Amino acid sequence: MNDLTQTPEMLIGAMAARAREASALLAQASDADKARGLELAAQALRDHTDAIVRANAQDMDNAAANGLSPSMLDRLRLDPARIESTAAGVAQVAQLPNPLGEVIDETRRPNGLVLQRVRVPLGVIGIIYESRPNVTADAAALCLRAGNAAILRGGSEAIESNRAIHAAMIEGIGAAGLPVNAIQLVPTTDRAAVGAMLRAAGLIDLIVPRGGKSLVARVQEEARVPVLAHLDGMNTSYVHASADPEMARELILNAKMRRTGICGATETVLLDAAFPAKRAVIAALLDAKCAVRGDMAVQALDSRVTPASDEDWDTEYLDAIVAAAEVNGLDEALAHIAAHSSHHTDAIIAEDAEAAERFLNAVDSAIVMWNASTQFADGGEFGLGAEIGISTGRLHARGPVALEGLTTYKWIVRGTGQKRP
Amino acid sequence: MNDLTQTPEMLIGAMAARAREASALLAQASDADKARGLELAAQALRDHTDAIVRANAQDMDNAAANGLSPSMLDRLRLDPARIESTAAGVAQVAQLPNPLGEVIDETRRPNGLVLQRVRVPLGVIGIIYESRPNVTADAAALCLRAGNAAILRGGSEAIESNRAIHAAMIEGIGAAGLPVNAIQLVPTTDRAAVGAMLRAAGLIDLIVPRGGKSLVARVQEEARVPVLAHLDGMNTSYVHASADPEMARELILNAKMRRTGICGATETVLLDAAFPAKRAVIAALLDAKCAVRGDMAVQALDSRVTPASDEDWDTEYLDAIVAAAEVNGLDEALAHIAAHSSHHTDAIIAEDAEAAERFLNAVDSAIVMWNASTQFADGGEFGLGAEIGISTGRLHARGPVALEGLTTYKWIVRGTGQKRP
Repeated sequence: MNDLTQTPEMLIGAMAARAREASALLAQASDADKARGLELAAQALRDHTDAIVRANAQDMDNAAANGLSPSMLDRLRLDPARIESTAAGVAQVAQLPNPLGEVIDETRRPNGLVLQRVRVPLGVIGIIYESRPNVTADAAALCLRAGNAAILRGGSEAIESNRAIHAAMIEGIGAAGLPVNAIQLVPTTDRAAVGAMLRAAGLIDLIVPRGGKSLVARVQEEARVPVLAHLDGMNTSYVHASADPEMARELILNAKMRRTGICGATETVLLDAAFPAKRAVIAALLDAKCAVRGDMAVQALDSRVTPASDEDWDTEYLDAIVAAAEVNGLDEALAHIAAHSSHHTDAIIAEDAEAAERFLNAVDSAIVMWNASTQFADGGEFGLGAEIGISTGRLHARGPVALEGLTTYKWIVRGTGQKRP
Repeated sequence: MNDLTQTPEMLIGAMAARAREASALLAQASDADKARGLELAAQALRDHTDAIVRANAQDMDNAAANGLSPSMLDRLRLDPARIESTAAGVAQVAQLPNPLGEVIDETRRPNGLVLQRVRVPLGVIGIIYESRPNVTADAAALCLRAGNAAILRGGSEAIESNRAIHAAMIEGIGAAGLPVNAIQLVPTTDRAAVGAMLRAAGLIDLIVPRGGKSLVARVQEEARVPVLAHLDGMNTSYVHASADPEMARELILNAKMRRTGICGATETVLLDAAFPAKRAVIAALLDAKCAVRGDMAVQALDSRVTPASDEDWDTEYLDAIVAAAEVNGLDEALAHIAAHSSHHTDAIIAEDAEAAERFLNAVDSAIVMWNASTQFADGGEFGLGAEIGISTGRLHARGPVALEGLTTYKWIVRGTGQKRP
């Protein structure tokens, strides 16, 4: 497996073939086996905490020598607490309801054929990620729970940490009698291996990129395999004329400022011209040290507002900066969102239920909200128990994706000798 | 719209922009409006039968002059009966249940947020097809019923027929107050327009190719937009040792010979060595004028069997030819299918329920059948009312795809001012 004389194409081809075999074996394992495998993997992570920390120290040393930024170093760093949290996450995935075998629907045809659509694993899933080594455990656990084989390709700066975590994961699932090739780690740090994964149509069924915008953009640009991801969270919160002023102020503050770096953060605020408390909303943002870039009307509300440029309406700041504009009514808000949204999460704040329902119906985004903070856009907050990612694509799975999005279905037809006339 | 000084990219870009606008308008139309639009479109097809037949005569004259094969000429040909059948199909799509607005699931979170996943249109769908002009009406009707805008690109040999059918369709939907840009026909026969559609990621949400293998292969090869299709129907029927001999003979005959040219036809027959009536099954095929290419064991059953080459196990004949092999038990059958299936439709014939359930579970195909003819692999036979195609892809929709496969969902979150802690 570590024969680096292979081309990246050969390596990925061989890994995908082993993954396909493993997924066929997994299909025959019981759900209890899979849950038990994840519990044992969680235990193995705990048991091997020292080894994982040592491996991580090697990565940290190399990374410091290579001049990685403090924020990247922090993402890379593992300590016993972080390993415990990763192990707890893996154990929690073992507790989630079994996503497989569900009969989605059943029909009996006049000729007596009985048709069922039954949920089955998706197959082979490629995860491409950056410096956070915990993804090695998190993503593998979700894939396995849904019966899939995972091919993991982490950042080269985390290779030793990933190897140590991977070793613990396969020790656990192997002890439960599951095929260890269900969780494979790409052994090379050669970037060409990523390209080979992206081109492996038919061998890998789905690619999930986990990381920053440049990674996601590269994956979406190059992949021939379907990709589950979102590039931007260009989210808008619209304050309707009927909004409760107090609720509007608090929701906008939370949606923008609770954590500015997450994909569910609001990046644009639209204030209806007829909303009476516009000034208070803008002042609250400014008082919380959020820079506000406004159109003419918003600039007139507070002297601290700076002018917005055309680009501001399409910028995902991921920072304490917001773009704000005044709109004349719901239709103008809808038009602004249609023009600038990245189809991630958009919200209306309103007491007028009819206006809110029109908004929820008309806005074409993965998540639409009424009187709630866009920061709730998260698989955990949605009650999914975990999240492999948030998708702004329109096919297969949309919004927060957990176990169900890692499954597909097949048609099972049971007959008694029916011939087609 | 007919300004052919545009590049194909500009043309498709402009059409996709109009389609996106139309899909937003459609989202606001009622289901009754959409059904009414299709009924009026069916009526318009009937009313304009003469004009459509005249347009088709032009295409037929050109096609004959260009030396098209008799089978292609037959696919191109329209007469009043075929137009009536097309109109009836459009009217039938109007009768199908509304696929939109369904609440797939609903959760109330401890913080009071109410989450729903609600079925919504997919968006803009590109249909690329060949000489059959009825696809112009059939595919457009399905797309529209599911709230989508369609961009239709038929074969150049059918351009006049397609224009006439398209004119009738938009007359109908326009009369119901629906946006006529919801059904657009690519006005040029320039093949570069197909390439532009395949590259229109983000502008077109899904491409459905309708036609022969070379078209589907080109689309799958070049497309950057997701594709819903199947390339091959390399279907296997496996006769288990426990199969009822009479049922086995009749099902195999039907699965192979009822219509040899459809994608659900069986192409390989596996006979269990322990099945006592192997000879009768093979003889029945041969007596029905099906050529049988067999392995050594099958050759020994009947002198008319010719030797199979390695390629035969991967060949979709779409003809009165079948490959047949003997296997030793279920596991060998599963291994053969795993190695050669195109994941379309595979069947087991067996009285042993345990063996059948193992087969249904283990075979990784869009459709798996027990004691039924693989020729049932069809949206109409599955009770879907219609079919845009059959998908062997693993994401989004699998097997026969009708209205539901042309939808996606969005998350609707209703709150009362919840902030994320």
